Amino acid sequence: MNEVELINLILDRLGTAGRDARLKIGPGDDAAVVEWEPEQDVVVSTDVCVDGVHVPKDCPGDLVGYRTVAMSVSDIVAMGAVPRYLTIALTIEQPDVDWIAAFADGVRDACVEADTTVIGGNIAKGVKQISATAIGTVRRGQAIHRHTAKPEDDIWVTGRLGATQLALPVMTAWIPQGLSELRQLTSTDVIARYLLPPIRTPFVECLRQYASACTDITDGLAFELEQLISGSPHGYRVETDEIPLWSSAVLDDVLANDDSYEMLFTSSKENREAVLHYGKNSHTPISRIGTVLPTADREFVPAREVQSRITGFSHF
Amino acid sequence: MNEVELINLILDRLGTAGRDARLKIGPGDDAAVVEWEPEQDVVVSTDVCVDGVHVPKDCPGDLVGYRTVAMSVSDIVAMGAVPRYLTIALTIEQPDVDWIAAFADGVRDACVEADTTVIGGNIAKGVKQISATAIGTVRRGQAIHRHTAKPEDDIWVTGRLGATQLALPVMTAWIPQGLSELRQLTSTDVIARYLLPPIRTPFVECLRQYASACTDITDGLAFELEQLISGSPHGYRVETDEIPLWSSAVLDDVLANDDSYEMLFTSSKENREAVLHYGKNSHTPISRIGTVLPTADREFVPAREVQSRITGFSHF
Repeated sequence: MNEVELINLILDRLGTAGRDARLKIGPGDDAAVVEWEPEQDVVVSTDVCVDGVHVPKDCPGDLVGYRTVAMSVSDIVAMGAVPRYLTIALTIEQPDVDWIAAFADGVRDACVEADTTVIGGNIAKGVKQISATAIGTVRRGQAIHRHTAKPEDDIWVTGRLGATQLALPVMTAWIPQGLSELRQLTSTDVIARYLLPPIRTPFVECLRQYASACTDITDGLAFELEQLISGSPHGYRVETDEIPLWSSAVLDDVLANDDSYEMLFTSSKENREAVLHYGKNSHTPISRIGTVLPTADREFVPAREVQSRITGFSHF
Repeated sequence: MNEVELINLILDRLGTAGRDARLKIGPGDDAAVVEWEPEQDVVVSTDVCVDGVHVPKDCPGDLVGYRTVAMSVSDIVAMGAVPRYLTIALTIEQPDVDWIAAFADGVRDACVEADTTVIGGNIAKGVKQISATAIGTVRRGQAIHRHTAKPEDDIWVTGRLGATQLALPVMTAWIPQGLSELRQLTSTDVIARYLLPPIRTPFVECLRQYASACTDITDGLAFELEQLISGSPHGYRVETDEIPLWSSAVLDDVLANDDSYEMLFTSSKENREAVLHYGKNSHTPISRIGTVLPTADREFVPAREVQSRITGFSHF
């Protein structure tokens, strides 16, 4: 199969899922064209999924496709924006048609879940790797920064943390499972949760309305907590027992290194009931884990020594 | 250097070149946010630059940076849109600070030339590779398709074709040169032209006003000619002597395989003077190479046998 045939195969698999009335020119031209809604800002983020780093080596295509989309969408949601469009660039050594078709299936399934449309991409020969750019939309001026937490704000987190740390050691013996099977297991199985990060689009509107600051968790909780107050004179107190962990996850590991793609956000105490309500209505598990402090203190109760760990994960 | 330090180094090198008043949140948050202009469509394209494929192995960073931006911008210009924003994802095996700094310099120089701003990106460990997503803006509904050429339209091409075919065989003995030196040589030296594709932003407004169809040339001229009439009952006649070639370039090679990133476009005969005028005023070399035919014939005068070559370049 040559490139054109591979692209057609992918477009075929993607189907019309999520096709968007505002998409004026889709895949197949030099670039995609979207008629932008008035009074909406454009929100853009790029992520890379490296084979053997962000996904296990030889991971089935559908799982890689799903995970790539979920990773990308996560950054847009963390801005309080609705993910709408994706471009995906795939490099692969050989035109493995089965893997590529499965990859497209996984992309499609995640796009349907996130209500997002693939509007362009690229395929080239190279070591297996995917980069995805997600484009979202948010009402003008309402995107949420990472670092704008206010003193006395509650600190919240969605979902549960620590699946990656638990999954990686046991994955050596893992027998690849299908996407549809794994999707049933994301609330009970650490491997399923690690491979298929949550798509938190049902919770976006709550973030946009109530969050004073937000980031997705990709570099360990301690590093991400720092993001919330970065550049401010503020600090935080975290009730470590309130941090929602997978059972047998080690808190210190989660503080040092977690890429659960869950949302970490702050919100005024006054919104507490509204946030809880929104979590319930959108079927988004949420936990209140602490408070933003007016002073620069970092308190973990019970105490935790994390100063050495707030640099986040580094590839190098 | 860890990732955060590398990102800061890159942002430092990029400086404020091209910083855009509509960029509300730039690099450093989960995603970038742009206040979109009313009545403007969003134009998006993703490209990949693989080390050893799209650029020679061990190519200096500044040349790779420049080339990556030029490649990406080209797709946006081919839509008649103004390239405005870029995200760049770099994977690299080792955090080679000198190479990365030079890469950022090259990105900056090309962004200044294209009047484009880097608004986000990603850096991760992996085989050296760059993917770039370019975002452009065009007045609502005025983006130019590839395949909308009309019968009797003139067929035009910018610049000169064939540099890649001439450059690759002699590059084995090439001693890497600096970006600023090579930028002086793009109209006289095939290696300079191959490494540093043209940035045709000064010609965008002409394309938007007068082009009935447009594509950038990345897969050989014969393949791109097919794009102009794809899905239509039309054909084309090309005066082969009018195709602007580098001296000693072989026409058959250019028909089969050329990635000059020049613009191939069609325009009504009535616009002929206006297009020539625009080319001159914007210092864009342009050549009229043929005519769109109302019938499905493909004529090369003098005759050329190209039927077997219109599948374009395939990586696989």
